[in-house]
Amino acid sequence: MYAVTYELIHKDKFTGARAGILHTPHGDFFTPIFMPVGTQATVKTLSPEEISELGAEVILSNTYHLFLRPGAELIQKAGGLHKFMHWSKGILTDSGGFQVFSLGELRKISEDGVTFRSHIDGAKKFLSPEVSVETQIKLGSDIMMAFDECIPYPAEYDYAKKSTERTHRWAERSLHAAKVSESQGIFGICQGGMYEDLRAESAKVIGSMDFDGCAIGGLSVGEDKETMYKMLEVSTKYLPENKARYLMGVGTPDHLIEGVLRGVDMFDCVFATRVARNGMAMVSPKTSSRGRLVMKNAEFTEDFSPLENNCDCYTCRNNFTRAYIRHLVRADEIFGLRLLTLHNLRYLQKFMADMRESILADKFNEFRKEFFSEWR
Amino acid sequence: MYAVTYELIHKDKFTGARAGILHTPHGDFFTPIFMPVGTQATVKTLSPEEISELGAEVILSNTYHLFLRPGAELIQKAGGLHKFMHWSKGILTDSGGFQVFSLGELRKISEDGVTFRSHIDGAKKFLSPEVSVETQIKLGSDIMMAFDECIPYPAEYDYAKKSTERTHRWAERSLHAAKVSESQGIFGICQGGMYEDLRAESAKVIGSMDFDGCAIGGLSVGEDKETMYKMLEVSTKYLPENKARYLMGVGTPDHLIEGVLRGVDMFDCVFATRVARNGMAMVSPKTSSRGRLVMKNAEFTEDFSPLENNCDCYTCRNNFTRAYIRHLVRADEIFGLRLLTLHNLRYLQKFMADMRESILADKFNEFRKEFFSEWR
Repeated sequence: MYAVTYELIHKDKFTGARAGILHTPHGDFFTPIFMPVGTQATVKTLSPEEISELGAEVILSNTYHLFLRPGAELIQKAGGLHKFMHWSKGILTDSGGFQVFSLGELRKISEDGVTFRSHIDGAKKFLSPEVSVETQIKLGSDIMMAFDECIPYPAEYDYAKKSTERTHRWAERSLHAAKVSESQGIFGICQGGMYEDLRAESAKVIGSMDFDGCAIGGLSVGEDKETMYKMLEVSTKYLPENKARYLMGVGTPDHLIEGVLRGVDMFDCVFATRVARNGMAMVSPKTSSRGRLVMKNAEFTEDFSPLENNCDCYTCRNNFTRAYIRHLVRADEIFGLRLLTLHNLRYLQKFMADMRESILADKFNEFRKEFFSEWR
Repeated sequence: MYAVTYELIHKDKFTGARAGILHTPHGDFFTPIFMPVGTQATVKTLSPEEISELGAEVILSNTYHLFLRPGAELIQKAGGLHKFMHWSKGILTDSGGFQVFSLGELRKISEDGVTFRSHIDGAKKFLSPEVSVETQIKLGSDIMMAFDECIPYPAEYDYAKKSTERTHRWAERSLHAAKVSESQGIFGICQGGMYEDLRAESAKVIGSMDFDGCAIGGLSVGEDKETMYKMLEVSTKYLPENKARYLMGVGTPDHLIEGVLRGVDMFDCVFATRVARNGMAMVSPKTSSRGRLVMKNAEFTEDFSPLENNCDCYTCRNNFTRAYIRHLVRADEIFGLRLLTLHNLRYLQKFMADMRESILADKFNEFRKEFFSEWR
């Protein structure tokens, strides 16, 4: 029995784009879905009600960060992550693999797992498939992720092959460790670096395991777009149709479309929330050809229009103007970061909903063409 | 005709404490009232809906800051400060006097006004009674403040006397400049340093002018409590009964009680919002004898209770625990600052409402005694 299942509702007649429903212990959610990132048990600047109100249904939290602070035991004592952070819909936790491998010289890999130094206080720590999954069980997320290595870019073929094979062994161990929790699902992660044969092999191996869903990791790590899309295609080609596909860490509008085109159902990315805190608004390419407004720019000084016309986000529908937001950003006011975060996340939710509608109407190609006709 | 009036509803039988109603162009508000500070056209971290929902009805904005950035002309073009920041209840603007005098060597005082350097970009600027009031007219606040000098502490008698006399001449000029705006009220400000005779004289002079209300400035600037309370008593003694009295920049719970005891109706202070952003929760002295919880403290690590039992603020009524807030504060998460700001401001609103109830029941003395029996 799977705790998390994917129901395919409709596949676009002319592309690989899929519209479905993700069934989780905390609700059933339409796909394709974008999951905002709440690294430290909070989606930065927002309240749970705000996250829900803007249409987000699954959020991602980072095991690495919570493992180090406040610790998974504390969150377990609080009644789990949902209760701790007051969020009643879906939560996906990553495995911590991406973060510990990003530590560079601060970590040491063995077959058993990874020894590393905490970025907070330098304390020596250890993560492995078993420790990661046990931690995620304590957190109580709906979707756990297998412990993997995100291969650095560029990487030699031999390293990519060995790493991917280890990731497969770790996937088995993660899956085994997850069996004690019947109320949580676990996704495997395909790797393979930038090598087509390794990607194909990894998709086959992970896709054949008893996971609730399959993620594609190690993309958008510095490679060019064409390579990324090619690797993605090879991966989804060999993944089972009856499970959700999740492209990890990808979330700019162009990549979201290209991911959906290639049959991806789930995405997460810090982009929307991070650029908000840097004073940037995400808008339609019709409004700005790069899809972004830099709010500090002088052009917005006396601009009393909303960030985007016809946007139904809190910020725009309440007439908080570009001029006001520019003022807040220049004055380093937190409310400005909130207004931009609310807008950017709502922009992505609406964007995903629009994609879903176009898939259901077999018009995903038109949707994509229209978007890219304006996108520079 | 006054744009802002004070209606005395009930005076406590045994003290000088007053319960009343402040009538403003943007609504009628119960007094005694605490006004949260929204220096830069935003109450730090909060949305207008949140400010309203926690019970705040008048907020204070700083003319000095808005004069420099984004500029009063811009806010006027936006339709005034209410519309610019999306706040439909009362706004009081200070005159900028306090801030420019705080600049120390960066400012030069003459009878005409004050020349100073902007703290943002060093640009040379000038504020005077006329410029300040014209700026406040552009902002469109409900209550404007006369331009005054907040006398530094300590100050020689001669300096305090001369400064207070100039403040009186500036009050006349401020009042004259305000006449062009019939839709806004203006309050005069009593000074007098820490000298009883000057305080009495200043209250008489300002109290006799044609202001909509009277403020007491230059207190809580470093003097001991007894001196502050003495100066306050002398001031309110000579202020007219039929106008609101506003004690500027004062807002710790003990000072609020002592102000109300001496006949003050209005208060503002950055304390509640500033300590929130430093990770401190304001609670009843029954909960903590100092009325404060330092959320980083280890004692809250596994404390799954709310900041305060029976508190009806957003944070407490939604079961955000001390342990969660401690985690957010330690992780530098903005949502933690929001949760504490919401709690602290609600604490003060409830505190003022409780004081009002006790006045209406002629039980202010009992309220005060109970508070101080726990306060250390």
